[in-house]
Amino acid sequence: LGRYVSGIKEGHIIPGAKMRLLTPATTIGVLDAANGLGQVAGDMAIHWAIQTAKQHGLAVVTVKNSNHYGIAGYYAEQAVAQNLVAISLTNSAPLVVPTNGADVLLGTNPIAFAAPAGKHPAFLLDMATSVVPRGKLEVYDRNRREMPGGWAVDEHGYDCKNAGQVLKNLIERTGGGILPLGGRGELFSGYKGYGLALMVDILCGVLSGSAYGADVDDVHRASEGGEKRFPNVGHFFLVMDPSRFMPLEEFKDRMDDLIASLKNSRKALDQHTIFVHGEKEFAKAAVHREVGVPLSEVVTAALRKLAQGVSVEMPPFVASGVCRRDNAKIASED
Amino acid sequence: LGRYVSGIKEGHIIPGAKMRLLTPATTIGVLDAANGLGQVAGDMAIHWAIQTAKQHGLAVVTVKNSNHYGIAGYYAEQAVAQNLVAISLTNSAPLVVPTNGADVLLGTNPIAFAAPAGKHPAFLLDMATSVVPRGKLEVYDRNRREMPGGWAVDEHGYDCKNAGQVLKNLIERTGGGILPLGGRGELFSGYKGYGLALMVDILCGVLSGSAYGADVDDVHRASEGGEKRFPNVGHFFLVMDPSRFMPLEEFKDRMDDLIASLKNSRKALDQHTIFVHGEKEFAKAAVHREVGVPLSEVVTAALRKLAQGVSVEMPPFVASGVCRRDNAKIASED
Repeated sequence: LGRYVSGIKEGHIIPGAKMRLLTPATTIGVLDAANGLGQVAGDMAIHWAIQTAKQHGLAVVTVKNSNHYGIAGYYAEQAVAQNLVAISLTNSAPLVVPTNGADVLLGTNPIAFAAPAGKHPAFLLDMATSVVPRGKLEVYDRNRREMPGGWAVDEHGYDCKNAGQVLKNLIERTGGGILPLGGRGELFSGYKGYGLALMVDILCGVLSGSAYGADVDDVHRASEGGEKRFPNVGHFFLVMDPSRFMPLEEFKDRMDDLIASLKNSRKALDQHTIFVHGEKEFAKAAVHREVGVPLSEVVTAALRKLAQGVSVEMPPFVASGVCRRDNAKIASED
Repeated sequence: LGRYVSGIKEGHIIPGAKMRLLTPATTIGVLDAANGLGQVAGDMAIHWAIQTAKQHGLAVVTVKNSNHYGIAGYYAEQAVAQNLVAISLTNSAPLVVPTNGADVLLGTNPIAFAAPAGKHPAFLLDMATSVVPRGKLEVYDRNRREMPGGWAVDEHGYDCKNAGQVLKNLIERTGGGILPLGGRGELFSGYKGYGLALMVDILCGVLSGSAYGADVDDVHRASEGGEKRFPNVGHFFLVMDPSRFMPLEEFKDRMDDLIASLKNSRKALDQHTIFVHGEKEFAKAAVHREVGVPLSEVVTAALRKLAQGVSVEMPPFVASGVCRRDNAKIASED
């Protein structure tokens, strides 16, 4: 939330921006988000794609001149709720070093993919194409723990286990950053994560008309020449109607069968459960819907400060430490 | 080549099968490959998608009842040659263990993605979603080298560095197999490679009407009940026309700019070159087109044996050890 508030204050995000959707072909949409909120742009784009896929079976929509759009999977989930299959991609601020490189040129560029199932919750993959997110480095830094090799590199492009150093380098732009999925070099196929990050950037940045590579969502770097620049983030959505391929119930039965075959398959001796993507998160969401969303003191304090900064009153059910209308307390925090 | 010849001999591949393409929507194709050659099915599908994308900007086509279709990137390359952007996916025989699992339930399920550039060669990513291909284990086994941890698991689902043991287990179906991209467990995000493999299987297997999971291309296992089964491999192709999004030259210029920014960026101190996907392969192809394709004695002998088995005469330029019509000799072999 903080990044959106400061984005609006600093003028990088324009609330109420007039967004414009062009349709150069029946099943293709091109949205100019006019530097508005990424969530508003993402919502507009996925809704158009959902309606178009319902009518024509298939839709692709790109978004340019946007901002950070939040959770990639959120948009794919909206399509799944309408019994559609969806891909949601976005590029993002540079944090990732290409294979053999020493400078960040790619974002954590996530891939979200969702498909509806029947008895089982929907399949919902939502993954950064980096080996770990920035937040993981921050946790290791706070706890002063050494990172495993293969997560990040220093300013020379060498493997670096010091999270604090990598984060400092990222802030000061002295080189180094997070590694793509597969780690450094070729041993664990880091060029695959690097390739996936590039694929996302080609679809979200190059194809949409947005910024790409090191220029995405990096207003400070981009404005160094004195010219005012916007984050210019790009998104890409693909929506398909499985009922054009086979009866919807058959598709869902087949999804259930695939999921069950994974869930029921033999576990590693030290493991109890094979998970399918989205399963843990849907289970957690169900609990939180029941008992409320636990908010740590740190989060509540940050929200209060943000609210005060923009003269908004905090609703009592947020201020209490548990985000639930009837204010029930729960023991565990996450 | 051997697998196709034996597939035809054993009746799992039907040469000359009558394939049937349905179009449930203007931009959606559904091909029934009728257990014919995967290459023939793949070609038919991508050609339909290319023509459709040229006409309508976008096309998706699924293929069911197919066989191993060779190189995923080959089909994406055909679209790129027509200035289109393409994704090519296929599921494949089970070799990969899901995160926390001990049995193979997924293929190496590759993702190929290609986009045309201008001055630079096209971007062409073609990657298995496993951490390494089976061939890598075979090399380590032949050389009696210990594999790094994180490539494969034994029959208990534990990390295994003995390539021979993993390969033996795979053949004898006693459990274990190759790990998804990201390795075992959560430390290097193996659930991401597992999720990508599942995404490919949902699009190629579930959505197409083909086999999925452990049933793909596994005629022996599938026929254990006595019933004759076909490999029933599935493919998925997506083709888009970038000229619907912006003028083609602008798209290519932007691709060139992104590629140049990667090529020109700072290298790790121990590296000389940052590669872009496809670059190495296009350079090698150009050399081989000039001097011929070097064939090792082992490959030539295998081809000769295959040819004799089906009473086909080997052309002299293949038999010579270098596959070139004018029969020039070259020094290096690969």
